[in-house]
Amino acid sequence: MRAVVMRNKQLVVDTVPDPEPGPGEVVVRTLACGICGSDLHALKFADKMVDVARETETPFTLDPSKDVVMGHEFCVEVLDYGPGTEGSVQPGHRAVSMPLVFRASGIQGVGYSNEVPGGYGELMVLNASLLLEVPNGLATPHAALTEPMAVGLHAVEKARLDPGDAAMVFGCGPVGLAVIAALKLKGVDTIVAGDFSPMRRALAQKMGAHVVVDPKERRLIDAYREVADLRPAAVFECVGVPGVLQEVMRQAPRGAKIVVAGVCMEDDAIRPMLGINKELSVQFVLGYTPMEFADTLAAIADGRIDVSPLVTGTVGVEGVAQAFTDLGNPERHAKILVEPWRA
Amino acid sequence: MRAVVMRNKQLVVDTVPDPEPGPGEVVVRTLACGICGSDLHALKFADKMVDVARETETPFTLDPSKDVVMGHEFCVEVLDYGPGTEGSVQPGHRAVSMPLVFRASGIQGVGYSNEVPGGYGELMVLNASLLLEVPNGLATPHAALTEPMAVGLHAVEKARLDPGDAAMVFGCGPVGLAVIAALKLKGVDTIVAGDFSPMRRALAQKMGAHVVVDPKERRLIDAYREVADLRPAAVFECVGVPGVLQEVMRQAPRGAKIVVAGVCMEDDAIRPMLGINKELSVQFVLGYTPMEFADTLAAIADGRIDVSPLVTGTVGVEGVAQAFTDLGNPERHAKILVEPWRA
Repeated sequence: MRAVVMRNKQLVVDTVPDPEPGPGEVVVRTLACGICGSDLHALKFADKMVDVARETETPFTLDPSKDVVMGHEFCVEVLDYGPGTEGSVQPGHRAVSMPLVFRASGIQGVGYSNEVPGGYGELMVLNASLLLEVPNGLATPHAALTEPMAVGLHAVEKARLDPGDAAMVFGCGPVGLAVIAALKLKGVDTIVAGDFSPMRRALAQKMGAHVVVDPKERRLIDAYREVADLRPAAVFECVGVPGVLQEVMRQAPRGAKIVVAGVCMEDDAIRPMLGINKELSVQFVLGYTPMEFADTLAAIADGRIDVSPLVTGTVGVEGVAQAFTDLGNPERHAKILVEPWRA
Repeated sequence: MRAVVMRNKQLVVDTVPDPEPGPGEVVVRTLACGICGSDLHALKFADKMVDVARETETPFTLDPSKDVVMGHEFCVEVLDYGPGTEGSVQPGHRAVSMPLVFRASGIQGVGYSNEVPGGYGELMVLNASLLLEVPNGLATPHAALTEPMAVGLHAVEKARLDPGDAAMVFGCGPVGLAVIAALKLKGVDTIVAGDFSPMRRALAQKMGAHVVVDPKERRLIDAYREVADLRPAAVFECVGVPGVLQEVMRQAPRGAKIVVAGVCMEDDAIRPMLGINKELSVQFVLGYTPMEFADTLAAIADGRIDVSPLVTGTVGVEGVAQAFTDLGNPERHAKILVEPWRA
């Protein structure tokens, strides 16, 4: 099959072997697959990802020196079930799935595996039991956003919101926008978001932010105080570069629940006294639960999360390398989808 | 009155004006006052404490260039109530109090104030409404430990323990020992503690730790896994020097609730990916609630917290400067009490 392969820290289009389904698995055709910020990170920091996985005893066996077909935000068409396997989604129907394949060899992270290809290739194998059928009427590109939007829902769930909590969101890239959508879904009535990019601020408003600020012009906390006064705050760090957590801790109101949803691959410096004096909590988050993933699909399907503003481009396999570059410009893109069935 | 005064980053014994009670206040005689690690910090880092207070908009008006009588862990005898003021504790009876005085001029932190003296002086003024009578039969030195033990109870409360949680305690100085005592009070059945000092490890066992380790010999997490296997963990950072939080994050099991009870005055480096990959939470804590303070006094009085092993020395005013030095040696001391009524 054709696929975009990460090879020697480059993205190349190549022909690779079709994946073979084992028992309990299903072969699917990739209809659309989002490019995630983590994929951009992985191209640059794959070695670090592996080091941290080892350090944290995560069952994650990626070897960055070997080929990887990335892509973990996908909507697929079911083709064939593996030997002795039945599934709830009929061949020819569309599905989404958490990007994990449980095998005797260990858990494979779809999109970060040397053993199973991700959604930047024409075909994938998935666990049959993890398939969720895409409801009729839900557009394929929107279904493909289930995964990144589930990241936002999980971050909001981990904040353990209390009634009356208001929210601040630092950074309105895909993660921040997913968090804003989830906050709106949960009925949070005051969401203050900040990003340097005018386009991202406009998207933040479309997704449900009540107040958006340009951090060059105004601190988020000042805008927050104006609309939320002394209400308790859930604060979401959705940038993921060194120095941001410290700034979030500086601005966070007393007793705030900070959720770190941005993925900072580098070491970072903090001033513990800021946390101590204000009794801050910092919750690091990763991924989502199966229930959150399913809830997100349902929320997108019935319109409680409107993802349509987020898709700003689609590319075939030949366009992926350029798309990685283009995603560096926040004025041009939020989410680019790969359609690996086209050149 | 005689007092130990912090003046130009030195401790000197001097005669200072007797404090005058305002309305709502009470004059008390200091019977015993513990030396806190924060006092050692303050002598070295008072400027930083003030900077952080300003940065976090804490109502804290200390001027380190002016005299300060430190001491905030005290047991007192009630002398006289201020104008028009009645209190629940009769003159001649003993009391403890949270070290705060609420005044029209702002909140004064007793022991970190230019306006009211702390317990390293013979006399103090306190808010009458905050006094808690020391029950008959509770020794004065043990009552004076209410404040530091309340710090431990607060840290444990902020961990929001779930049934079945086990605990790790990094550092068995006064804060770590108070945390261990509070964990025992809350019925936690598996407490693994670590400290480089044999004396502190022995104290940790007396206070309720089930397993103690020398971190030079064995990582806490290895000892933890042996006794707690994969049980969810509350992990207490009770050291407060740069690098420890990072090490705690490295050792913490997946999903652990880390509570930062150590007071690190300096900037610190962390690796966010350790937190992200393991979905750690980091709760910074400070002080205690009035209810926790009262509960701690009750627990000490009725023997549910046995503080007797903790008092390793007493000094008069002339001995305080040397005691600050002596507390640097973990083999000699846990808690030294100042009795400012004697030389």
